Amino acid sequence: MNLEKLKKQIEFIKEIDKLKYILRKTKLINSDRNENDAEHSWHLSVMAIVLAEHANAPIDMLRVVKMLLIHDIVEIDAGDTFIYDAQKSHDNTEEEREAAKRIFGILPGDQAEELLTLWEEFEEQQTSDAKFARAMDRLEPLLQNTSNNGGTWNEFGVNYDKVYAKKYAIAHGSATIWEYAEQLLNESVEKGILKR
Amino acid sequence: MNLEKLKKQIEFIKEIDKLKYILRKTKLINSDRNENDAEHSWHLSVMAIVLAEHANAPIDMLRVVKMLLIHDIVEIDAGDTFIYDAQKSHDNTEEEREAAKRIFGILPGDQAEELLTLWEEFEEQQTSDAKFARAMDRLEPLLQNTSNNGGTWNEFGVNYDKVYAKKYAIAHGSATIWEYAEQLLNESVEKGILKR
Repeated sequence: MNLEKLKKQIEFIKEIDKLKYILRKTKLINSDRNENDAEHSWHLSVMAIVLAEHANAPIDMLRVVKMLLIHDIVEIDAGDTFIYDAQKSHDNTEEEREAAKRIFGILPGDQAEELLTLWEEFEEQQTSDAKFARAMDRLEPLLQNTSNNGGTWNEFGVNYDKVYAKKYAIAHGSATIWEYAEQLLNESVEKGILKR
Repeated sequence: MNLEKLKKQIEFIKEIDKLKYILRKTKLINSDRNENDAEHSWHLSVMAIVLAEHANAPIDMLRVVKMLLIHDIVEIDAGDTFIYDAQKSHDNTEEEREAAKRIFGILPGDQAEELLTLWEEFEEQQTSDAKFARAMDRLEPLLQNTSNNGGTWNEFGVNYDKVYAKKYAIAHGSATIWEYAEQLLNESVEKGILKR
Protein backbone atom coordinates (compact mmCIF):
# COMPACT_ATOMS: atom_id res chain seq x y z
CA MET A 1 0.00 0.00 0.00
CA ASN A 2 1.21 3.44 -0.92
CA LEU A 3 -0.76 5.30 1.75
CA GLU A 4 2.12 7.65 2.59
CA LYS A 5 2.53 8.72 -1.03
CA LEU A 6 -1.23 8.97 -1.39
CA LYS A 7 -1.45 11.36 1.55
CA LYS A 8 0.98 13.78 -0.11
CA GLN A 9 -1.00 13.56 -3.33
CA ILE A 10 -4.25 14.29 -1.46
CA GLU A 11 -2.64 17.28 0.22
CA PHE A 12 -1.70 18.64 -3.23
CA ILE A 13 -5.23 17.98 -4.53
CA LYS A 14 -6.70 19.98 -1.64
CA GLU A 15 -4.19 22.80 -2.06
CA ILE A 16 -4.95 23.38 -5.74
CA ASP A 17 -8.65 23.84 -4.93
CA LYS A 18 -7.58 27.46 -4.34
CA LEU A 19 -7.17 27.96 -8.09
CA LYS A 20 -10.98 28.24 -8.24
CA TYR A 21 -10.76 31.60 -6.44
CA ILE A 22 -8.14 33.21 -8.70
CA LEU A 23 -10.00 35.56 -11.01
CA ARG A 24 -8.79 36.55 -14.46
CA LYS A 25 -9.45 39.92 -16.09
CA THR A 26 -11.42 38.37 -18.96
CA LYS A 27 -15.13 37.64 -18.72
CA LEU A 28 -17.01 34.51 -19.82
CA ILE A 29 -18.56 34.38 -23.31
CA ASN A 30 -21.43 36.94 -23.62
CA SER A 31 -21.11 37.72 -19.94
CA ASP A 32 -19.83 40.18 -17.39
CA ARG A 33 -18.77 37.44 -14.98
CA ASN A 34 -14.99 37.08 -14.56
CA GLU A 35 -13.48 33.72 -15.39
CA ASN A 36 -11.47 31.89 -12.74
CA ASP A 37 -8.24 30.01 -13.38
CA ALA A 38 -9.69 26.53 -12.80
CA GLU A 39 -12.49 27.03 -15.35
CA HIS A 40 -9.98 28.59 -17.72
CA SER A 41 -7.63 25.60 -17.43
CA TRP A 42 -10.53 23.22 -18.08
CA HIS A 43 -11.62 25.14 -21.15
CA LEU A 44 -8.11 25.27 -22.68
CA SER A 45 -7.68 21.53 -22.15
CA VAL A 46 -10.89 20.70 -24.02
CA MET A 47 -9.91 23.19 -26.74
CA ALA A 48 -6.55 21.46 -27.22
CA ILE A 49 -8.25 18.10 -27.65
CA VAL A 50 -10.78 19.45 -30.12
CA LEU A 51 -8.30 21.55 -32.12
CA ALA A 52 -5.35 19.10 -32.16
CA GLU A 53 -5.51 18.44 -35.90
CA HIS A 54 -4.57 22.06 -36.62
CA ALA A 55 -1.21 21.95 -34.83
CA ASN A 56 1.77 23.00 -36.99
CA ALA A 57 3.89 20.09 -35.79
CA PRO A 58 3.21 16.67 -34.24
CA ILE A 59 2.20 17.05 -30.60
CA ASP A 60 1.85 14.69 -27.65
CA MET A 61 -1.72 15.38 -26.60
CA LEU A 62 -1.37 14.03 -23.05
CA ARG A 63 1.62 16.31 -22.43
CA VAL A 64 -0.23 19.30 -23.89
CA VAL A 65 -3.27 18.65 -21.70
CA LYS A 66 -1.15 18.15 -18.57
CA MET A 67 0.60 21.45 -19.31
CA LEU A 68 -2.69 23.28 -19.71
CA LEU A 69 -4.23 21.74 -16.59
CA ILE A 70 -1.32 22.94 -14.45
CA HIS A 71 -0.07 26.08 -16.27
CA ASP A 72 -1.77 28.56 -13.95
CA ILE A 73 -1.41 26.74 -10.61
CA VAL A 74 1.44 29.10 -9.67
CA GLU A 75 -1.12 31.92 -9.57
CA ILE A 76 -2.44 30.51 -6.27
CA ASP A 77 0.59 32.23 -4.73
CA ALA A 78 1.58 34.76 -7.40
CA GLY A 79 -1.87 35.96 -8.50
CA ASP A 80 -3.12 36.61 -12.03
CA THR A 81 -1.10 39.13 -14.05
CA PHE A 82 -2.98 40.92 -16.84
CA ILE A 83 -1.32 40.09 -20.15
CA TYR A 84 -1.26 43.76 -21.29
CA ASP A 85 0.10 45.04 -17.98
CA ALA A 86 3.38 46.74 -18.92
CA GLN A 87 4.37 47.35 -15.30
CA LYS A 88 4.21 43.80 -14.10
CA SER A 89 5.65 41.52 -16.74
CA HIS A 90 3.48 38.58 -17.64
CA ASP A 91 6.59 36.53 -18.13
CA ASN A 92 7.82 34.02 -15.70
CA THR A 93 8.64 36.00 -12.60
CA GLU A 94 10.72 34.89 -9.67
CA GLU A 95 7.49 34.88 -7.65
CA GLU A 96 5.95 32.34 -10.01
CA ARG A 97 9.02 30.13 -9.84
CA GLU A 98 8.88 30.12 -6.04
CA ALA A 99 5.17 29.28 -6.24
CA ALA A 100 5.84 26.38 -8.59
CA LYS A 101 8.45 24.98 -6.22
CA ARG A 102 6.19 25.30 -3.21
CA ILE A 103 2.98 23.94 -4.73
CA PHE A 104 4.33 21.13 -6.95
CA GLY A 105 6.73 20.40 -4.09
CA ILE A 106 3.81 19.13 -2.00
CA LEU A 107 3.76 16.04 -4.26
CA PRO A 108 6.11 13.03 -3.92
CA GLY A 109 9.55 13.87 -5.40
CA ASP A 110 9.25 12.28 -8.86
CA GLN A 111 5.86 13.87 -9.49
CA ALA A 112 6.93 17.26 -8.17
CA GLU A 113 9.85 17.14 -10.60
CA GLU A 114 7.67 16.09 -13.54
CA LEU A 115 5.12 18.88 -13.09
CA LEU A 116 7.73 21.55 -12.38
CA THR A 117 9.59 20.58 -15.57
CA LEU A 118 6.37 20.60 -17.57
CA TRP A 119 5.45 24.04 -16.21
CA GLU A 120 8.92 25.37 -17.15
CA GLU A 121 8.57 23.90 -20.63
CA PHE A 122 5.32 25.82 -21.07
CA GLU A 123 6.91 29.04 -19.88
CA GLU A 124 10.00 28.63 -22.10
CA GLN A 125 7.97 28.08 -25.30
CA GLN A 126 10.61 26.06 -27.15
CA THR A 127 8.74 22.82 -27.92
CA SER A 128 5.80 22.03 -30.22
CA ASP A 129 3.74 20.94 -27.21
CA ALA A 130 4.36 24.22 -25.39
CA LYS A 131 3.63 26.31 -28.50
CA PHE A 132 0.33 24.57 -29.17
CA ALA A 133 -0.65 24.92 -25.50
CA ARG A 134 0.17 28.64 -25.61
CA ALA A 135 -1.96 29.03 -28.76
CA MET A 136 -4.97 27.80 -26.74
CA ASP A 137 -4.16 30.27 -23.98
CA ARG A 138 -4.19 33.15 -26.50
CA LEU A 139 -7.26 31.99 -28.42
CA GLU A 140 -9.71 31.70 -25.52
CA PRO A 141 -9.66 35.38 -24.44
CA LEU A 142 -9.99 36.36 -28.12
CA LEU A 143 -13.27 34.42 -28.27
CA GLN A 144 -14.33 35.98 -24.98
CA ASN A 145 -13.48 39.60 -25.88
CA THR A 146 -15.10 39.42 -29.32
CA SER A 147 -18.29 38.09 -27.68
CA ASN A 148 -18.23 40.95 -25.15
CA ASN A 149 -17.97 44.05 -27.35
CA GLY A 150 -14.20 44.17 -26.99
CA GLY A 151 -14.15 43.14 -23.32
CA THR A 152 -10.79 43.82 -21.68
CA TRP A 153 -9.48 45.58 -24.85
CA ASN A 154 -11.96 48.38 -24.30
CA GLU A 155 -11.96 48.18 -20.52
CA PHE A 156 -8.20 48.71 -20.35
CA GLY A 157 -7.71 50.66 -23.60
CA VAL A 158 -5.55 48.13 -25.43
CA ASN A 159 -5.13 48.80 -29.16
CA TYR A 160 -4.85 46.55 -32.23
CA ASP A 161 -1.05 46.54 -32.36
CA LYS A 162 -0.69 45.39 -28.76
CA VAL A 163 -3.36 42.72 -29.16
CA TYR A 164 -1.85 41.56 -32.48
CA ALA A 165 1.60 41.23 -30.92
CA LYS A 166 0.29 39.00 -28.10
CA LYS A 167 -2.06 36.98 -30.30
CA TYR A 168 0.68 36.26 -32.83
CA ALA A 169 1.83 33.47 -30.50
CA ILE A 170 -1.09 31.50 -31.95
CA ALA A 171 0.76 31.32 -35.29
CA HIS A 172 3.64 29.44 -33.66
CA GLY A 173 1.23 26.72 -32.56
CA SER A 174 -1.15 26.61 -35.51
CA ALA A 175 -1.16 28.46 -38.85
CA THR A 176 -4.81 27.50 -39.43
CA ILE A 177 -6.02 28.82 -36.08
CA TRP A 178 -3.93 31.96 -36.61
CA GLU A 179 -5.64 32.54 -39.96
CA TYR A 180 -8.99 32.39 -38.17
CA ALA A 181 -7.74 34.58 -35.29
CA GLU A 182 -6.33 37.27 -37.58
CA GLN A 183 -9.67 37.42 -39.38
CA LEU A 184 -11.41 37.84 -36.02
CA LEU A 185 -9.05 40.73 -35.13
CA ASN A 186 -9.72 42.47 -38.45
CA GLU A 187 -13.48 42.06 -38.00
CA SER A 188 -13.14 43.51 -34.50
CA VAL A 189 -11.49 46.63 -35.93
CA GLU A 190 -14.24 46.94 -38.55
CA LYS A 191 -16.91 46.62 -35.87
CA GLY A 192 -15.17 49.27 -33.79
CA ILE A 193 -14.66 46.98 -30.77
CA LEU A 194 -10.85 47.03 -31.20
CA LYS A 195 -9.17 50.41 -31.80
CA ARG A 196 -6.34 50.91 -34.32
CA MET B 1 -7.02 24.99 -44.82
CA ASN B 2 -9.66 23.45 -42.60
CA LEU B 3 -11.54 26.67 -41.84
CA GLU B 4 -14.97 25.05 -42.21
CA LYS B 5 -14.12 22.31 -39.72
CA LEU B 6 -12.49 24.86 -37.45
CA LYS B 7 -15.66 26.95 -37.36
CA LYS B 8 -17.69 23.99 -36.07
CA GLN B 9 -15.02 23.34 -33.43
CA ILE B 10 -15.09 27.00 -32.35
CA GLU B 11 -18.89 26.86 -32.10
CA PHE B 12 -18.56 23.84 -29.76
CA ILE B 13 -15.87 25.62 -27.72
CA LYS B 14 -18.18 28.61 -27.23
CA GLU B 15 -21.18 26.42 -26.38
CA ILE B 16 -19.42 24.52 -23.60
CA ASP B 17 -18.55 27.81 -21.86
CA LYS B 18 -22.01 27.35 -20.31
CA LEU B 19 -20.66 24.53 -18.12
CA LYS B 20 -19.14 27.27 -15.94
CA TYR B 21 -22.65 28.25 -14.81
CA ILE B 22 -23.86 24.77 -13.81
CA LEU B 23 -23.64 24.59 -10.03
CA ARG B 24 -23.15 21.37 -8.11
CA LYS B 25 -24.56 20.72 -4.64
CA THR B 26 -21.10 20.31 -3.09
CA LYS B 27 -19.06 23.24 -1.84
CA LEU B 28 -15.34 23.95 -2.37
CA ILE B 29 -12.81 22.78 0.26
CA ASN B 30 -13.31 24.66 3.57
CA SER B 31 -15.90 26.88 1.92
CA ASP B 32 -19.59 27.58 1.49
CA ARG B 33 -19.20 28.46 -2.19
CA ASN B 34 -20.79 25.92 -4.57
CA GLU B 35 -18.53 24.29 -7.11
CA ASN B 36 -19.38 24.59 -10.78
CA ASP B 37 -19.07 21.78 -13.33
CA ALA B 38 -16.13 23.30 -15.23
CA GLU B 39 -14.00 23.68 -12.09
CA HIS B 40 -15.05 20.20 -11.01
CA SER B 41 -13.99 18.69 -14.35
CA TRP B 42 -10.62 20.45 -14.12
CA HIS B 43 -10.05 19.19 -10.60
CA LEU B 44 -10.90 15.56 -11.43
CA SER B 45 -8.56 15.65 -14.44
CA VAL B 46 -5.61 16.81 -12.35
CA MET B 47 -6.52 14.23 -9.70
CA ALA B 48 -6.45 11.43 -12.27
CA ILE B 49 -2.98 12.46 -13.43
CA VAL B 50 -1.64 12.69 -9.90
CA LEU B 51 -3.27 9.46 -8.65
CA ALA B 52 -2.73 7.29 -11.75
CA GLU B 53 -0.27 4.91 -10.06
CA HIS B 54 -3.02 3.68 -7.71
CA ALA B 55 -5.29 2.36 -10.49
CA ASN B 56 -6.28 -1.30 -10.09
CA ALA B 57 -5.63 -2.06 -13.76
CA PRO B 58 -3.57 -0.46 -16.55
CA ILE B 59 -5.26 2.71 -17.78
CA ASP B 60 -4.83 4.98 -20.79
CA MET B 61 -4.33 8.35 -19.12
CA LEU B 62 -5.26 10.47 -22.15
CA ARG B 63 -8.58 8.62 -22.49
CA VAL B 64 -9.27 8.97 -18.73
CA VAL B 65 -8.57 12.71 -18.83
CA LYS B 66 -10.69 13.23 -21.96
CA MET B 67 -13.55 11.37 -20.23
CA LEU B 68 -13.28 13.53 -17.13
CA LEU B 69 -13.03 16.78 -19.10
CA ILE B 70 -16.28 16.02 -20.95
CA HIS B 71 -18.23 13.82 -18.49
CA ASP B 72 -20.52 16.60 -17.25
CA ILE B 73 -21.00 18.60 -20.47
CA VAL B 74 -24.47 17.04 -20.85
CA GLU B 75 -25.50 18.98 -17.73
CA ILE B 76 -25.54 22.17 -19.82
CA ASP B 77 -28.93 20.93 -21.04
CA ALA B 78 -29.91 18.36 -18.39
CA GLY B 79 -28.74 20.18 -15.24
CA ASP B 80 -26.90 18.75 -12.26
CA THR B 81 -28.64 15.86 -10.48
CA PHE B 82 -27.76 15.39 -6.81
CA ILE B 83 -26.19 11.96 -6.38
CA TYR B 84 -28.39 11.09 -3.35
CA ASP B 85 -31.60 12.28 -5.02
CA ALA B 86 -33.81 9.16 -5.03
CA GLN B 87 -36.53 10.82 -7.10
CA LYS B 88 -34.43 11.81 -10.05
CA SER B 89 -32.04 9.01 -10.87
CA HIS B 90 -28.44 10.06 -11.19
CA ASP B 91 -28.04 7.47 -13.86
CA ASN B 92 -27.90 8.21 -17.49
CA THR B 93 -31.32 9.61 -18.30
CA GLU B 94 -32.86 10.05 -21.70
CA GLU B 95 -32.46 13.80 -21.20
CA GLU B 96 -28.70 13.41 -20.80
CA ARG B 97 -28.47 11.27 -23.91
CA GLU B 98 -30.31 13.90 -25.93
CA ALA B 99 -27.99 16.55 -24.51
CA ALA B 100 -24.92 14.52 -25.49
CA LYS B 101 -26.21 14.18 -29.03
CA ARG B 102 -26.97 17.87 -29.34
CA ILE B 103 -23.80 19.26 -27.78
CA PHE B 104 -21.17 16.82 -29.10
CA GLY B 105 -23.12 16.95 -32.39
CA ILE B 106 -21.96 20.55 -32.90
CA LEU B 107 -18.49 19.12 -33.69
CA PRO B 108 -17.45 17.65 -37.06
CA GLY B 109 -18.81 14.08 -37.44
CA ASP B 110 -15.76 12.05 -36.44
CA GLN B 111 -15.13 14.11 -33.32
CA ALA B 112 -18.80 14.13 -32.31
CA GLU B 113 -18.76 10.34 -32.55
CA GLU B 114 -15.54 10.03 -30.53
CA LEU B 115 -16.73 12.19 -27.64
CA LEU B 116 -20.22 10.67 -27.58
CA THR B 117 -18.70 7.18 -27.41
CA LEU B 118 -16.30 8.25 -24.68
CA TRP B 119 -19.16 9.78 -22.67
CA GLU B 120 -21.16 6.55 -23.04
CA GLU B 121 -18.16 4.51 -21.90
CA PHE B 122 -17.96 6.61 -18.75
CA GLU B 123 -21.67 6.17 -18.07
CA GLU B 124 -21.59 2.41 -18.67
CA GLN B 125 -18.67 1.78 -16.27
CA GLN B 126 -17.38 -1.38 -17.91
CA THR B 127 -13.77 -0.46 -18.71
CA SER B 128 -10.73 0.21 -16.49
CA ASP B 129 -10.54 3.77 -17.83
CA ALA B 130 -14.18 4.48 -16.96
CA LYS B 131 -13.84 2.90 -13.50
CA PHE B 132 -10.78 4.95 -12.60
CA ALA B 133 -12.45 8.12 -13.90
CA ARG B 134 -15.53 7.39 -11.77
CA ALA B 135 -13.31 6.86 -8.71
CA MET B 136 -12.09 10.46 -9.11
CA ASP B 137 -15.70 11.67 -9.39
CA ARG B 138 -16.54 9.97 -6.08
CA LEU B 139 -13.38 10.98 -4.24
CA GLU B 140 -13.55 14.76 -4.79
CA PRO B 141 -16.87 15.40 -2.95
CA LEU B 142 -15.60 13.17 -0.12
CA LEU B 143 -12.64 15.53 0.33
CA GLN B 144 -15.02 18.50 0.10
CA ASN B 145 -17.62 17.20 2.56
CA THR B 146 -15.05 16.11 5.14
CA SER B 147 -13.51 19.61 4.99
CA ASN B 148 -16.93 21.22 5.45
CA ASN B 149 -18.25 19.51 8.61
CA GLY B 150 -20.16 16.94 6.60
CA GLY B 151 -21.27 19.36 3.87
CA THR B 152 -24.06 17.93 1.72
CA TRP B 153 -24.35 14.82 3.96
CA ASN B 154 -25.64 17.00 6.77
CA GLU B 155 -27.40 19.52 4.58
CA PHE B 156 -29.52 16.82 2.94
CA GLY B 157 -29.54 14.26 5.78
CA VAL B 158 -27.67 11.46 4.01
CA ASN B 159 -26.47 8.66 6.29
CA TYR B 160 -23.38 6.44 6.33
CA ASP B 161 -24.96 3.52 4.47
CA LYS B 162 -26.06 5.65 1.55
CA VAL B 163 -22.72 7.42 1.35
CA TYR B 164 -20.83 4.11 1.63
CA ALA B 165 -22.88 2.58 -1.19
CA LYS B 166 -22.06 5.47 -3.55
CA LYS B 167 -18.42 5.78 -2.52
CA TYR B 168 -17.80 2.07 -2.98
CA ALA B 169 -17.40 2.81 -6.71
CA ILE B 170 -13.93 4.05 -5.75
CA ALA B 171 -12.90 0.44 -4.97
CA HIS B 172 -13.58 -0.59 -8.58
CA GLY B 173 -11.05 1.99 -9.77
CA SER B 174 -8.44 1.78 -7.01
CA ALA B 175 -8.13 -0.46 -3.95
CA THR B 176 -5.54 1.90 -2.43
CA ILE B 177 -7.68 5.00 -2.77
CA TRP B 178 -10.67 3.06 -1.44
CA GLU B 179 -8.68 2.08 1.66
CA TYR B 180 -8.02 5.78 2.25
CA ALA B 181 -11.64 6.73 1.50
CA GLU B 182 -13.09 4.11 3.82
CA GLN B 183 -10.86 5.40 6.61
CA LEU B 184 -12.12 8.92 5.92
CA LEU B 185 -15.74 7.71 6.16
CA ASN B 186 -15.07 5.96 9.49
CA GLU B 187 -13.35 9.06 10.87
CA SER B 188 -16.34 11.14 9.75
CA VAL B 189 -18.67 8.91 11.77
CA GLU B 190 -16.38 9.19 14.82
CA LYS B 191 -16.33 12.98 14.48
CA GLY B 192 -20.11 13.04 14.21
CA ILE B 193 -20.16 14.69 10.78
CA LEU B 194 -21.63 11.57 9.15
CA LYS B 195 -24.61 9.88 10.84
CA ARG B 196 -24.94 6.09 11.12
